[in-house]
Amino acid sequence: MIHIAITAGGTEETIDGVRKITNMSSGSLSWFCLEAVLSYIEKHKIEAYTIHYIKASRAVTNELNAEQASHINFIEVTNTQSVYNAVETLMNEVDVDIFIHAMAISDFSYAYSVAKSDLAEEIYQHIAANKKISKKDIEAIITNPKSKHSADAKISSSQEIVMGFETTPKVISLIKKIKHNTFLVGFKLVKHNKDNHMIKQAEKLRLANNCDAVFANKASQLSVKGHAGVLLYKGEPVAHPIGKKEIAEAIVNLAFQKIN
Amino acid sequence: MIHIAITAGGTEETIDGVRKITNMSSGSLSWFCLEAVLSYIEKHKIEAYTIHYIKASRAVTNELNAEQASHINFIEVTNTQSVYNAVETLMNEVDVDIFIHAMAISDFSYAYSVAKSDLAEEIYQHIAANKKISKKDIEAIITNPKSKHSADAKISSSQEIVMGFETTPKVISLIKKIKHNTFLVGFKLVKHNKDNHMIKQAEKLRLANNCDAVFANKASQLSVKGHAGVLLYKGEPVAHPIGKKEIAEAIVNLAFQKIN
Repeated sequence: MIHIAITAGGTEETIDGVRKITNMSSGSLSWFCLEAVLSYIEKHKIEAYTIHYIKASRAVTNELNAEQASHINFIEVTNTQSVYNAVETLMNEVDVDIFIHAMAISDFSYAYSVAKSDLAEEIYQHIAANKKISKKDIEAIITNPKSKHSADAKISSSQEIVMGFETTPKVISLIKKIKHNTFLVGFKLVKHNKDNHMIKQAEKLRLANNCDAVFANKASQLSVKGHAGVLLYKGEPVAHPIGKKEIAEAIVNLAFQKIN
Repeated sequence: MIHIAITAGGTEETIDGVRKITNMSSGSLSWFCLEAVLSYIEKHKIEAYTIHYIKASRAVTNELNAEQASHINFIEVTNTQSVYNAVETLMNEVDVDIFIHAMAISDFSYAYSVAKSDLAEEIYQHIAANKKISKKDIEAIITNPKSKHSADAKISSSQEIVMGFETTPKVISLIKKIKHNTFLVGFKLVKHNKDNHMIKQAEKLRLANNCDAVFANKASQLSVKGHAGVLLYKGEPVAHPIGKKEIAEAIVNLAFQKIN
């Protein structure tokens, strides 16, 4: 039995009852990966397989025939914590052979909001009340101000605000920790590519999370047909596919080649 | 010629190339309002009319026949500023008779992000360098820290951050300022309704923006069939419709009754 896991779409972190922070990703590259897996599997007449498709609700899906659909385990997720939980459960329950982690995941979750003037007042009062104030004291206030809005209130619109965020657990680092020989594909999106920045960032991602392959690309290169980037295996460029379908095929073919 | 304007969906404020803040709204109540207008217009055999439908890209739409579609001017918007610009242009170009402003609009636009420790350090250094520090000095730093991330960089994931926001221009206040006798319907969504809070908030909205009618509702009451709330005309409750279709009909019937 072959198990393939693919993550798709962008996470959503709730701010209050009416606002959220969205990581933008259509999920289309992930769907192309799913189709590339199905096409590989049909070509090689593999019969025992399951694709675990961990997706945000807005991630695109396309039509599947009944035979294909019977092999796909859709897992719906919302925020980063829910992705973390889903991946942890899956990795512990199933021997995943290939993990394509293409989802755009928020690095931050919302912690609080506070009016700028209230936060300034709180820091000012702290200085006034204490002869000595350290950087640590100030950072403690910024991390959890007493003057923050109450958690169950809708944020008022009349004052300028700042919002505080906490870092979220790193989903990608879980995968190889739980199963060392899963073939892990990570994705690195950079905004610019000055001085070979993209390859350096991809290497950083690989080394930190023990990825086998990384697909690195620039934000300016995101489009279905023109989408370009570089596929790295163990840090070495192995393909420069152009177009989402071609990128998905390059990734999936590399993964199957390496697990066989 | 009758002109009706309806706003629909939620705005999106960009944070960086990969993140945005979304105001959650499906736009379905607005679409029900559009359908209620069409139904009123057919019933009363009104022939000269245009519906200006200002919508976020994700706001739901439904099928229209060709005759109906020929009377609808769709205007696509994204962030609060784009809604402001669209409404300002429309109100100056067209004599709008009824304006149903149901869109969920962000009160804030993203200004900057900064690592918590960098912001704390900046405030601390300012204190160390100046014998006297005022609340105003601190607020100035919080409003525009020197240590903020550069605007064209993707926000780093390795440090805890705060984000600063600016207030956005109030779209609703524009409408009656430009044309005093447009019949304006505002919407007030509150999270709780303690101590008649909802009606008070609705009155505040009406008085600040010169609304003719306000539909007030609680976040916990948002659903297609069970959606409940109160329709106020000049501050007085005139209907307690339940269900989005019924709410839309109550609003549209009130508006046409008052402009005739």
